Amino acid sequence: MKSTIMEIAPEAIEAESFRIIAEELGPTEFDPRTFKVVQRVIHATGDFSFAESLVFYPQAIDAGIAAIRAGRNILTDVNMGAAGVSKGLLAAWGGSVICKVADPEVDRIAKESGLTRSEVAIEMGLTENIGIVSVGNAPTALLKVMECWDALAPELRPGLVVGVPVGFVNAAESKELLSEKTYPFITCLGRKGGTPVAVAIVNALIRLAKEV
Amino acid sequence: MKSTIMEIAPEAIEAESFRIIAEELGPTEFDPRTFKVVQRVIHATGDFSFAESLVFYPQAIDAGIAAIRAGRNILTDVNMGAAGVSKGLLAAWGGSVICKVADPEVDRIAKESGLTRSEVAIEMGLTENIGIVSVGNAPTALLKVMECWDALAPELRPGLVVGVPVGFVNAAESKELLSEKTYPFITCLGRKGGTPVAVAIVNALIRLAKEV
Repeated sequence: MKSTIMEIAPEAIEAESFRIIAEELGPTEFDPRTFKVVQRVIHATGDFSFAESLVFYPQAIDAGIAAIRAGRNILTDVNMGAAGVSKGLLAAWGGSVICKVADPEVDRIAKESGLTRSEVAIEMGLTENIGIVSVGNAPTALLKVMECWDALAPELRPGLVVGVPVGFVNAAESKELLSEKTYPFITCLGRKGGTPVAVAIVNALIRLAKEV
Repeated sequence: MKSTIMEIAPEAIEAESFRIIAEELGPTEFDPRTFKVVQRVIHATGDFSFAESLVFYPQAIDAGIAAIRAGRNILTDVNMGAAGVSKGLLAAWGGSVICKVADPEVDRIAKESGLTRSEVAIEMGLTENIGIVSVGNAPTALLKVMECWDALAPELRPGLVVGVPVGFVNAAESKELLSEKTYPFITCLGRKGGTPVAVAIVNALIRLAKEV
């Protein structure tokens, strides 16, 4: 056996992980709050390349925090993306996590319309006081968010779009489109991404919302 | 705008992704069934490095398929890992997905014992006719699986351990330990891994179980 398991208390594991990430990243140009988001994404993926690929709209973090503090809801594209969110911390502000992809009505509409269930679920969910949309899986869902944005009344628009779908068909392309928008977004360029990345970004924002 | 969104029917997206992955990987030494597992992991992560880091015990795929066909259950370390599994296809064989990490009893025992909730949840869950243990998040859970393995009566042992935790504290180390075991496992060496990797492996096996 070459490796040695580190003896460490459960509550110390995250802090030690974050320390290692900060140490290995070295000095960066991220402001302290953006750094915390980047750090949590690397923590969730074991992949330092996200320090290069993540793109933040200038007011993205303020917008995400404001949406959480206002008690608005978080809409996810897939159930895995909902399962990972720190719901207790979010609920303290009044918000909850919504994912409609397993809704039978969504399935019916998707089959009738030839759309993916993810995009139907996003369109239906966007009417429910959404503060943050979090798309980690389906490029079609992210494309639908951007399409709906323009059609939504300003007061119904989400405060922040977290769009980090993963994959080989339209993932990189949909994220590049998002990166050109003039409303608050957080994305990562290229094929990588995924639900853990989306969850890490949202959970970092939920923690930042607690800070003064 | 530099990118162009590909027009593609929802049901064709996965096949097109798999085609791109096979094309870019080029010829490999994987047997056809192992290739399908590797391909689904790359599909879930956008990360070709898993073609290098995944390690399969020689009978791992047979063991996983046999466990699914026998109607045994799948135990996951976190709720996200349970949420992503193709439960309908699994249920056709009689099995279901179990995750005890949000169980209040698990929380109580973890606090009293100084263990992580993940490891307590694994130990409790392993008594419930588990065919596959799927650990994508918590190294402590994977260490607990390996510890329990020796203590379990042979008929209670899972058929396959999928151990792919991600991270900076004991993730790589726990996977290296798993890779030295003489019972069926699938793992990936290094820091990368995560719940989508675990889910992709399990879902690939569930699909292989349907093939003759």
